[in-house]
Amino acid sequence: MSANAHLDLQNLKIGFLGDGQLARMMALEAHPLGLQTVVLSEDPLSPAAQVCGQRIHGSIKSKKDVIKLVNACHLLTFESEFVPGEVLSVLSEVKEDSSRIEIFPPLNSLQKIQNRTSQKSLLDLHKVPTSEWLPIKSHHQLQEAKEKLGSKLVLKKNFGGYDGNGTYILKTDSDEKSFIDRIDKSGGLSQGFIAEKWIPFKKELAIMIGRSRRGDFFHYPLVQTSQKDHRCDWVIGPVQHSKIQRILKPMKSLLESEEYIGVMGVEMFDLGSEILVNELAPRVHNSGHYSQLAMNPSQFKAHLLCGLGMKMTVSQSQPFFVMTNLIGETEGRIQVPADLKGQIHLYGKQENRPGRKMGHVNYTGKNLKSLLNLAIKERARIKK
Amino acid sequence: MSANAHLDLQNLKIGFLGDGQLARMMALEAHPLGLQTVVLSEDPLSPAAQVCGQRIHGSIKSKKDVIKLVNACHLLTFESEFVPGEVLSVLSEVKEDSSRIEIFPPLNSLQKIQNRTSQKSLLDLHKVPTSEWLPIKSHHQLQEAKEKLGSKLVLKKNFGGYDGNGTYILKTDSDEKSFIDRIDKSGGLSQGFIAEKWIPFKKELAIMIGRSRRGDFFHYPLVQTSQKDHRCDWVIGPVQHSKIQRILKPMKSLLESEEYIGVMGVEMFDLGSEILVNELAPRVHNSGHYSQLAMNPSQFKAHLLCGLGMKMTVSQSQPFFVMTNLIGETEGRIQVPADLKGQIHLYGKQENRPGRKMGHVNYTGKNLKSLLNLAIKERARIKK
Repeated sequence: MSANAHLDLQNLKIGFLGDGQLARMMALEAHPLGLQTVVLSEDPLSPAAQVCGQRIHGSIKSKKDVIKLVNACHLLTFESEFVPGEVLSVLSEVKEDSSRIEIFPPLNSLQKIQNRTSQKSLLDLHKVPTSEWLPIKSHHQLQEAKEKLGSKLVLKKNFGGYDGNGTYILKTDSDEKSFIDRIDKSGGLSQGFIAEKWIPFKKELAIMIGRSRRGDFFHYPLVQTSQKDHRCDWVIGPVQHSKIQRILKPMKSLLESEEYIGVMGVEMFDLGSEILVNELAPRVHNSGHYSQLAMNPSQFKAHLLCGLGMKMTVSQSQPFFVMTNLIGETEGRIQVPADLKGQIHLYGKQENRPGRKMGHVNYTGKNLKSLLNLAIKERARIKK
Repeated sequence: MSANAHLDLQNLKIGFLGDGQLARMMALEAHPLGLQTVVLSEDPLSPAAQVCGQRIHGSIKSKKDVIKLVNACHLLTFESEFVPGEVLSVLSEVKEDSSRIEIFPPLNSLQKIQNRTSQKSLLDLHKVPTSEWLPIKSHHQLQEAKEKLGSKLVLKKNFGGYDGNGTYILKTDSDEKSFIDRIDKSGGLSQGFIAEKWIPFKKELAIMIGRSRRGDFFHYPLVQTSQKDHRCDWVIGPVQHSKIQRILKPMKSLLESEEYIGVMGVEMFDLGSEILVNELAPRVHNSGHYSQLAMNPSQFKAHLLCGLGMKMTVSQSQPFFVMTNLIGETEGRIQVPADLKGQIHLYGKQENRPGRKMGHVNYTGKNLKSLLNLAIKERARIKK
């Protein structure tokens, strides 16, 4: 797929590793492009399986099943960076063996970013502003970290953390004690953590960036995100920050040096006078869901265009946008008022439960404050 | 599904009668709403089967198969008005038997509109400006029509015509002779035709209108359409015409009196000083494909919102829009330049052939003339 090629899009099958809402929303954008879609899923009613043309019965954790998926498609992408190392190895072998399949983002980048230590090292290497940190594998190292980074620390598990899972805030001795008690019961410190200096941020920001197979770097608008119980609650944008270029410039060089292909979510802390990168997500990201209504193309389509090496320009339809997440509060069914304002997206999850991401609603308009008020008010009318 | 109800969208299955591109594009809009999708299709690779969560193996022409589809869904809609009478009868019985399933548009409206004679009668009943016409079942009636409507006539088969199929233009005696020869070999005049007075129109216009289960009437912008070999070639809009209200007002009362639910395509002739309705299509329509990029919601989503009784407001993202159709020219594969400008939609048809609708491309922008130029130039770069 060279940059100036003609593509027989309807002859290309794209496979998704992961069968949740992110794969679902990518698949929904793959179809208008003419691509055929394949997902690996044990459940015919999983969010992605409901919308893909082909389902291969199997698990992302099984090497054998992943090979079945690989053999069924020409392009392969991911909805999560937490691909088990064993599966990454299989994919690396396939990749070396064959030019038949395009895997994006690059496996090397996934591997670096899925691990907190190597993600932080990558940020440091490219001089991307981020909080100070130290790797932690023992009680001794934890004490050292307190001396070097200050007594208030954020501890993050090296692998597999998301939405606050695997993240521990240590502000007091009692925080530390309960963290140690908990960790000792579930693998100990030796499984690997990083300690980050506690950042007293004013607000949280995010930006979707990306790089195409053609080599183009692009970014979406800067947004503010609000978390509740460690989960994304709402996103508003565009917002302005005088220091955003200090993030974008080194991130561009990071993507170039990685020969990265696809979109990437960049979560940040706004300290007022500066911005620090908190975390990277090498994939479509909750903070970019607003793009389905406010932007052309959406982040989901952008990710596919990157992988295909197709031309991409980002444009915005309205001055401002808001996205609110629909997080389950009960085990009852999601019930949507027939006269709901806004563009609703439901993920087709068959079971609701407290804390589960069930959908989101998008709004665009000319006044950000009244748009956010409307969105919050409308969300309260949805039974969840 | 009352207007003020809460809807358990993820528990609703929508079925499509028809498995082509129109059902495909409706299904792609059903998923974000959380609806589950079912299609009746003999081909797992048909345009709609590729994107629906469930496929029932069968044919729209088989009563038995249609009943299987009906039993699998809560809402049912159509991509074509040419549902065989036998199938319409089955659906009518189901509808009377059960309040479990919502069928839209109403079967009565489909039946009236699928037949040229009753469609023209419906237009006349509601005083919608349209060309003069007469029903034709014999040579004698054809001669009478020539006396009453003039020697230049358009003959249309009562049932099953589309994209110029079943339409015959009689301007000369030799046109008439070759028409009679052809028809005598394929069922004769007795199968039923209408004769329409030949209209020397300046251009062709179209507008998507609709009515929701909530009772709201709405319309999209007026557009100009251009046909090539009787198939839609491109659509531009919005265009203005001082007499459009003379169409919209009676069409609104037509939809109300029919208790119509869903969108409807209205094809028109622009005579300069007046507009005449040429044909109605009780469904999503090629002249409304531009809405996928230019409007929120698209005609496909609007049709679903109508059926669900959900709130709908139509908004436009950019001053102007253009859609170009991709019609097969060879039997080779469709090949898309990687740097194509515009939003491409491919229908996933596995075989290309001359005259087949394979996809379309949408554009929006600030200058209509340059937009159409760009669209035509870009289309020439697609191998089709």
